[in-house]
Amino acid sequence: MENLKQFLVALSAAAAAGIVSIIFVLIWVLNYKEGFAWDGGLAEFNWHPVLIVIGFIFFQGIAIIVYRLPWTWQCSKLMMKFIHAGLHLLAFILAVIAMVAVFDFHNAAKIPNMYSLHSWLGLTALILFCLQLVLGVGIYLIPVTPASWRAVFMPLHVYGGLLLFTSVIAVALMGITEKLIFGLSNPKYKDSPPEAIFVNVLGVLLVVFGALILWIATRTSWKRPSDQVLHTLHTIGEGEDSSKVGPVMSQLSDGTDAAPFGDVRRRSSNKLDDQAN
Amino acid sequence: MENLKQFLVALSAAAAAGIVSIIFVLIWVLNYKEGFAWDGGLAEFNWHPVLIVIGFIFFQGIAIIVYRLPWTWQCSKLMMKFIHAGLHLLAFILAVIAMVAVFDFHNAAKIPNMYSLHSWLGLTALILFCLQLVLGVGIYLIPVTPASWRAVFMPLHVYGGLLLFTSVIAVALMGITEKLIFGLSNPKYKDSPPEAIFVNVLGVLLVVFGALILWIATRTSWKRPSDQVLHTLHTIGEGEDSSKVGPVMSQLSDGTDAAPFGDVRRRSSNKLDDQAN
Repeated sequence: MENLKQFLVALSAAAAAGIVSIIFVLIWVLNYKEGFAWDGGLAEFNWHPVLIVIGFIFFQGIAIIVYRLPWTWQCSKLMMKFIHAGLHLLAFILAVIAMVAVFDFHNAAKIPNMYSLHSWLGLTALILFCLQLVLGVGIYLIPVTPASWRAVFMPLHVYGGLLLFTSVIAVALMGITEKLIFGLSNPKYKDSPPEAIFVNVLGVLLVVFGALILWIATRTSWKRPSDQVLHTLHTIGEGEDSSKVGPVMSQLSDGTDAAPFGDVRRRSSNKLDDQAN
Repeated sequence: MENLKQFLVALSAAAAAGIVSIIFVLIWVLNYKEGFAWDGGLAEFNWHPVLIVIGFIFFQGIAIIVYRLPWTWQCSKLMMKFIHAGLHLLAFILAVIAMVAVFDFHNAAKIPNMYSLHSWLGLTALILFCLQLVLGVGIYLIPVTPASWRAVFMPLHVYGGLLLFTSVIAVALMGITEKLIFGLSNPKYKDSPPEAIFVNVLGVLLVVFGALILWIATRTSWKRPSDQVLHTLHTIGEGEDSSKVGPVMSQLSDGTDAAPFGDVRRRSSNKLDDQAN
């Protein structure tokens, strides 16, 4: 791997920001709030921020960069796909429980559901995350799916994954804002009590975690070596008509993607697409 | 350009989402709120969301993708750099006025400044945006800056630009949340009055605008043709030791970047870096 030291620094910083975020959200709930319960009260609501930070943010972030870890490069790509999908599934399950907790709390307290921009974007993100998961498993883990479909879908899969991850963090920041306004009364949020400062710092940590995950995920030179080779071959083929570079090159040059967010091009005969991620 | 039709669809959708967002924020302020003034009251505050949406979101978004517009490819790269920098400068000036408006309003109403996560992240984004602007002008528009510096900085410039744009939208969503909670009292935000629904839709439009700008900015095949050639040459060089491909190829192969978010590699002798964006 090029720049291994830089990679390890970025990875350590991301892991630190993520783990400290989890510690912060736990301290928030256990020290400043009502702790945990499943009784329709505020202690049930508290599962919401905790499971979102652990599942929908931390696990999703790790799932995104799991292909980048050099010590996994000896594992088969198929096993890494299962780990990638498994971590996303875990993130999804925890996010669903987090949603149930908040609906339960609202219903018990007779607070309307789905009125806020936070709830609109959060539920949309969850539904699109589910769609992304189902399509991802269907296209990249079910052997009967035609390879050409894998290539066509890869740019959207990569772009959609990074966009959803970013959106979930944005939605979490809105949720923090709501909770600090509604949850602090004497002193209020605007009076900056210790809880307000503490949870603002949690928000900053989530942004730092997200920024580091996006940095790691979008460095082409930190991809698995096999994907880098395909990327290079693809880009050579891109410069000229693929019919001129022979059938093998034509086959290899399609379907991999130079772009971290993926790209839409040369869809007609893609073959080795799913190794591009 | 490859997939010109797809590009035009994406661009039209982005422009539509951006312009409708501006219309929405104007209707919000003029129809539901107090309109405009510069008197320390709520009508002064209203400059804040309007100038953020027009300047810090719409103009910044257009500035990011200005190199992608095919009808600008006949213009010199230098002129396009000036337009890119000029639009960012305009975005910055409008954002600064937006900040002044909210500080003025807070001071007049004796509301503390800088207590919320929205304010922390918003001011941080503005400061980093200013830094990005100063460094961008200093490195890419001042002729005396060594070409090697331009190459080293390009990955951070591209990544930082897209991250700041995304962050500004996230901060705007938090601001909308705050304003709807504080600004609606009878009926409240949770009772979903027309204003709440209307402004929630504005939030959704901002997310759609951001997602489309990120999609356009990260399609490698939609780059200016000269940048695509450099990208291809760079990636050919990447597959092997650059010393083997001769001095010209070695020179061309450095400094351009395959990755939408940029990448950190081959920094020692980069030459044509700033054409990569």
